[in-house]
Amino acid sequence: MSELFGPIFGTSSVDAVTSDGALLSAMCDIEAALADGCARAGLIADAEPVVAACNRARLLNITDLGLAAGTSGNPVIPLVAAIRTDAGDAGRDVHLGATSQDVLDTALMLVAQRAVRLVSEDLAAIDHRLTELARTHRATPMLARTLLQPAVATTFGALAATWGSGVARALAKLDELSFPVQLGGAAGTLAPLHPHGPAVRAVMAERLGLTDPGTVWHTDRTVIADLAGALGLSAIAIGKVATDIVLLSQAELGEVREARPGGSSAMAHKQNPIAAVTARAGAAQAPGLVATLLENATPELQRGAGSWHAEWPALLGLLRAVGGAAAQLRVSLTGLHVDPAAMARNLAQRRDAIDATDLGHATDVVDHFLDRR
Amino acid sequence: MSELFGPIFGTSSVDAVTSDGALLSAMCDIEAALADGCARAGLIADAEPVVAACNRARLLNITDLGLAAGTSGNPVIPLVAAIRTDAGDAGRDVHLGATSQDVLDTALMLVAQRAVRLVSEDLAAIDHRLTELARTHRATPMLARTLLQPAVATTFGALAATWGSGVARALAKLDELSFPVQLGGAAGTLAPLHPHGPAVRAVMAERLGLTDPGTVWHTDRTVIADLAGALGLSAIAIGKVATDIVLLSQAELGEVREARPGGSSAMAHKQNPIAAVTARAGAAQAPGLVATLLENATPELQRGAGSWHAEWPALLGLLRAVGGAAAQLRVSLTGLHVDPAAMARNLAQRRDAIDATDLGHATDVVDHFLDRR
Amino acid sequence: MSELFGPIFGTSSVDAVTSDGALLSAMCDIEAALADGCARAGLIADAEPVVAACNRARLLNITDLGLAAGTSGNPVIPLVAAIRTDAGDAGRDVHLGATSQDVLDTALMLVAQRAVRLVSEDLAAIDHRLTELARTHRATPMLARTLLQPAVATTFGALAATWGSGVARALAKLDELSFPVQLGGAAGTLAPLHPHGPAVRAVMAERLGLTDPGTVWHTDRTVIADLAGALGLSAIAIGKVATDIVLLSQAELGEVREARPGGSSAMAHKQNPIAAVTARAGAAQAPGLVATLLENATPELQRGAGSWHAEWPALLGLLRAVGGAAAQLRVSLTGLHVDPAAMARNLAQRRDAIDATDLGHATDVVDHFLDRR
Amino acid sequence: MSELFGPIFGTSSVDAVTSDGALLSAMCDIEAALADGCARAGLIADAEPVVAACNRARLLNITDLGLAAGTSGNPVIPLVAAIRTDAGDAGRDVHLGATSQDVLDTALMLVAQRAVRLVSEDLAAIDHRLTELARTHRATPMLARTLLQPAVATTFGALAATWGSGVARALAKLDELSFPVQLGGAAGTLAPLHPHGPAVRAVMAERLGLTDPGTVWHTDRTVIADLAGALGLSAIAIGKVATDIVLLSQAELGEVREARPGGSSAMAHKQNPIAAVTARAGAAQAPGLVATLLENATPELQRGAGSWHAEWPALLGLLRAVGGAAAQLRVSLTGLHVDPAAMARNLAQRRDAIDATDLGHATDVVDHFLDRR
Repeated sequence: MSELFGPIFGTSSVDAVTSDGALLSAMCDIEAALADGCARAGLIADAEPVVAACNRARLLNITDLGLAAGTSGNPVIPLVAAIRTDAGDAGRDVHLGATSQDVLDTALMLVAQRAVRLVSEDLAAIDHRLTELARTHRATPMLARTLLQPAVATTFGALAATWGSGVARALAKLDELSFPVQLGGAAGTLAPLHPHGPAVRAVMAERLGLTDPGTVWHTDRTVIADLAGALGLSAIAIGKVATDIVLLSQAELGEVREARPGGSSAMAHKQNPIAAVTARAGAAQAPGLVATLLENATPELQRGAGSWHAEWPALLGLLRAVGGAAAQLRVSLTGLHVDPAAMARNLAQRRDAIDATDLGHATDVVDHFLDRR
Repeated sequence: MSELFGPIFGTSSVDAVTSDGALLSAMCDIEAALADGCARAGLIADAEPVVAACNRARLLNITDLGLAAGTSGNPVIPLVAAIRTDAGDAGRDVHLGATSQDVLDTALMLVAQRAVRLVSEDLAAIDHRLTELARTHRATPMLARTLLQPAVATTFGALAATWGSGVARALAKLDELSFPVQLGGAAGTLAPLHPHGPAVRAVMAERLGLTDPGTVWHTDRTVIADLAGALGLSAIAIGKVATDIVLLSQAELGEVREARPGGSSAMAHKQNPIAAVTARAGAAQAPGLVATLLENATPELQRGAGSWHAEWPALLGLLRAVGGAAAQLRVSLTGLHVDPAAMARNLAQRRDAIDATDLGHATDVVDHFLDRR
Repeated sequence: MSELFGPIFGTSSVDAVTSDGALLSAMCDIEAALADGCARAGLIADAEPVVAACNRARLLNITDLGLAAGTSGNPVIPLVAAIRTDAGDAGRDVHLGATSQDVLDTALMLVAQRAVRLVSEDLAAIDHRLTELARTHRATPMLARTLLQPAVATTFGALAATWGSGVARALAKLDELSFPVQLGGAAGTLAPLHPHGPAVRAVMAERLGLTDPGTVWHTDRTVIADLAGALGLSAIAIGKVATDIVLLSQAELGEVREARPGGSSAMAHKQNPIAAVTARAGAAQAPGLVATLLENATPELQRGAGSWHAEWPALLGLLRAVGGAAAQLRVSLTGLHVDPAAMARNLAQRRDAIDATDLGHATDVVDHFLDRR
Repeated sequence: MSELFGPIFGTSSVDAVTSDGALLSAMCDIEAALADGCARAGLIADAEPVVAACNRARLLNITDLGLAAGTSGNPVIPLVAAIRTDAGDAGRDVHLGATSQDVLDTALMLVAQRAVRLVSEDLAAIDHRLTELARTHRATPMLARTLLQPAVATTFGALAATWGSGVARALAKLDELSFPVQLGGAAGTLAPLHPHGPAVRAVMAERLGLTDPGTVWHTDRTVIADLAGALGLSAIAIGKVATDIVLLSQAELGEVREARPGGSSAMAHKQNPIAAVTARAGAAQAPGLVATLLENATPELQRGAGSWHAEWPALLGLLRAVGGAAAQLRVSLTGLHVDPAAMARNLAQRRDAIDATDLGHATDVVDHFLDRR
């Protein structure tokens, strides 16, 4: 959301799908989908005037909408008012049976789905690159370091394979996520739509490309916690690779080097592994934000008095942080220069204690990793 | 681990499986399983002397072992030394090809598996009780409250069903967890066992009742993060129910009451919903501990210089906190007194604004929940 | 930073002082102050051309600057390049002896100082209002509730006094904060300015209205942790009051009511204590963000490889969250309607167990609080 | 509290002052001090029988007390019952006017005060050692590394001085802490002691060696947050030094070496900087625990329904984690071997880009640091 820092943290693409404008569009889409569902269930005569008003509402001035939201406590209230006014006689067909949380939860799911897709794309590219590195450097000897001390010999391919395991698990977790539509009405019982609520929800899910959860989850925030957990997993898979790149880039080791290192405002000779550095910085936001989401996941009775609102900045922040970190790690790995000679040299320094004559064990790790691809 | 506070937080049962003694036993089992695997792979002639020494090592003095661990940095080093000494000539067959992290990671998995089983049992009992409450109070009218303000009418069964959704998802997450054996040797390549490492690991997994991950995960801590995430989900499912019990127990609402409320050292008349209160306190430890585990899940190169060690207290603490919270919520729900008359009275107070004549929408929520059981 | 959500969370005013534009201005001021300091120390002939270029740089396009920052890893590098180009021959006098972290740390201190001033103003107004409430309701009897159960009798004034204690301590902590200028050069030794570094830093501090720390704190992030801790304290002082307002606003208690409660998109009768609710939501961001700042406060050697960058969004987010929460609590308390009759009624309900005949103890608490004002 | 892990994390000494036994003793001391205060205020005739019973209560069986605490929700209730029984006729003079939270809060303050004293002693020793290192290596040239890349030349003394700044600030923060007695009675108004409450509290404070806060802080948890913040500051000051020791100990750098490095269960040649590693692990517990304490610092009305209880394990855990980390860093620094030749060698490697001919700037940093001692 910051134009000054966004590109540094690689959040540019994920910023677009999590912006104020994206949220407004999502809310408009949701109100339109709701009207469509109501029409199909025979609850309203014609969805078209509502859908048309929703489409026009995408162009509402966000500053004004935000100011109006300030007095009501959420942006859905003034948005619905604006759509109703615009829809004229069809105004009574707007937002039928829904409550603000329905619209905001569903909008966050739409936004999250798009952001997670971007993260997944970056992780898939990272996964591909790690597979390539593992294959190329299957037998490239290097020093393994435990507690940052020389341990035994391994290969760079084996290290890349370990990185790949974490990334693969993170990808799998993201893949398992479902992004359910929310529709429960004022207190989660779909009251005004009864008995058509489930049918309306099904239409909405289909139209919006979300999952129909078959139930309401207003106050069951395990949905959010599950999403937060998967993003946390991505953050650590990313952070692990980025940390190792930073460490192996140390001049005294010199085993890898980013293709386009960053400079310094003070030192002309600096070669900073800046993409890995900023990937770490993004990933480092995740634990605190995950904690915030967990802390706010036990809402009071039928809607949390603050905990619901607390989710918005934390979830959007988490999507951006992890999205940016994935983008930056992808940059770091693209064209990452691996230096087998430096690896050999560092390993040879410890030849007194460390035997590197047979690395079949390490190449086996790589082969096993590649077999599972 | 505290005898003074443990029973308050309900951690008594989970304390037993996460105690120092349980960890020592687990480590002994693991060394025995390793020897067995090595023997079956033909790497050592006879596992029996090692297994026998491992069995005797369960009785080692924990205080002494801890002091020795203090100088080496982990308890495996002195434990292995003790087993080796005890095993005499077979001492060279002890801990073959393994490193300390293999033993500690696997021990934590054994301990976690047992603790998670206890949590699951409690959650299953809670789930059963919530189903019962949903069925009994399917049509018991009550006021729904959003942002803690009167909203619309619902039924207590519908609230119990919402609680049940979260608990069911938490249970499902715990069920999906796998508890993998760790065997990677000094730097994750199973070097000294090559090419028998995978076979030895398979034997260990079978003998210990753990999963064979088919790979090493020394530095891929997504395994730990996944476990932490599932425990976090349990914590919020528990915390949600406990929070609502505390709120509905307020004297001014009086809609539920624990069967055995706690007293006060100062006020004879106090009726505190103490089991729900302490369940909340346990669940409240989770977000911070999950954050700690995520923060320490990006170890440097082949073994984290501090982050690995940081997992031990945080993971054990998380297992105890969630285990205790589950036990306390189970106590709270057992015999929870529900007062339909109070619910009706509170609802009637709002009859000017809130219509409760037809609650078919709410009973539908319950029916749908019960159908999915 | 979000126009859609900012007004809801009350961050409008603090957004202005923490915006991209505010950061750019601050960085320009810092480069100008540095040039001034260098000129006074005789290190450069004339600061004016640099100062003039710095003033013009405030109008640089932030989007472009951000994109350029994306490739270098921080916004100071392209900003300095732009100022140098603009300054022509005086370009060599720009950013003399400084490094990017000098400029960014100092800019964050300037921004933090302004944001903290806003928080302090709101807390002072809150403090004033609480004093007023304590005085007015010195002897207004109400039920004290512990673990949310009826306990004994107290007065609303005594509760307001307790709220006031926390707010006063938070204010005092903010007051004790110092906002030091950062000037250390490439690695914290003020190398290129030697031996004039301390003198230059003193000029900068004076010109910018910051503290001269008399040393460099590039890698001693206790400065940031101290700020984070004080903001955390503010968050809990705010969150405590907001929580109690939400609880006492429950319809079944009805003891307080916000002057301008928020509505609902679904229920016309809703009277939500929305300012207190959103104050809670803001305060709830703090613990996670404080944890993120602490986690990133142990930078590697002479500059953290990611932890430094990680501070930026977390610190700005914390300032906004706490700033917004303070603003919303102030709104909540302004015109808060206190209902002594409801308090008396709720107290009378427990007259069997709770004696309220003599409340001298509670009025003493208030008197003592007022004496300390 | 774990005998197996305690010595690894250096928590042995702090374990003693935070143990179940220490808490029981503290609670007995508090009840005795209360009786003494009541006697001096003329509220009871004779404190001696109560004091004697309190002294005997130190020997109560902790397991039994814990089990009894389990049904009442806190250990004070059964402890008071036991003291009353033991005191016979004087039983009515036990716990006069106090509530459980008075005793537990005050006990935690006593325990915290002792634990903080241990931390301060270790930090003072660390501070002394860093001063010594700064002096000895005032002019020992070494490479400064920013983002873990070679930057410019500095001296090891300058690095030690930076470490010292953080440690000094942490020490100062610990020094500023006050540990107030808690005495408020059932709901914070000192009701049954009125008007003698403040006088009784003053006696208790004096007798226990705590501060008399002049007010009650049952629900103003800024006291706890302040303590948590100071401990967090200590954790980062410790973690910073430990991190740098780990990094400079890397074999490829070899610039420092612990006097008694730890071994490995798998590799005979390993030389792990294990004291620094475990100091990092302890410090790494702090951010999550601080977050937990902040999250639970906004209790509901006159006593938090779970948040109060949640403080106990988190605060005790934080004291132990930071206490252990301080102890381990002290071990790490004691006899830390500094290798000027290795520093010179690494610096010379970059002589193409980095000038180390004049290090007056770095020695100035040291001199300035030493001047402030």
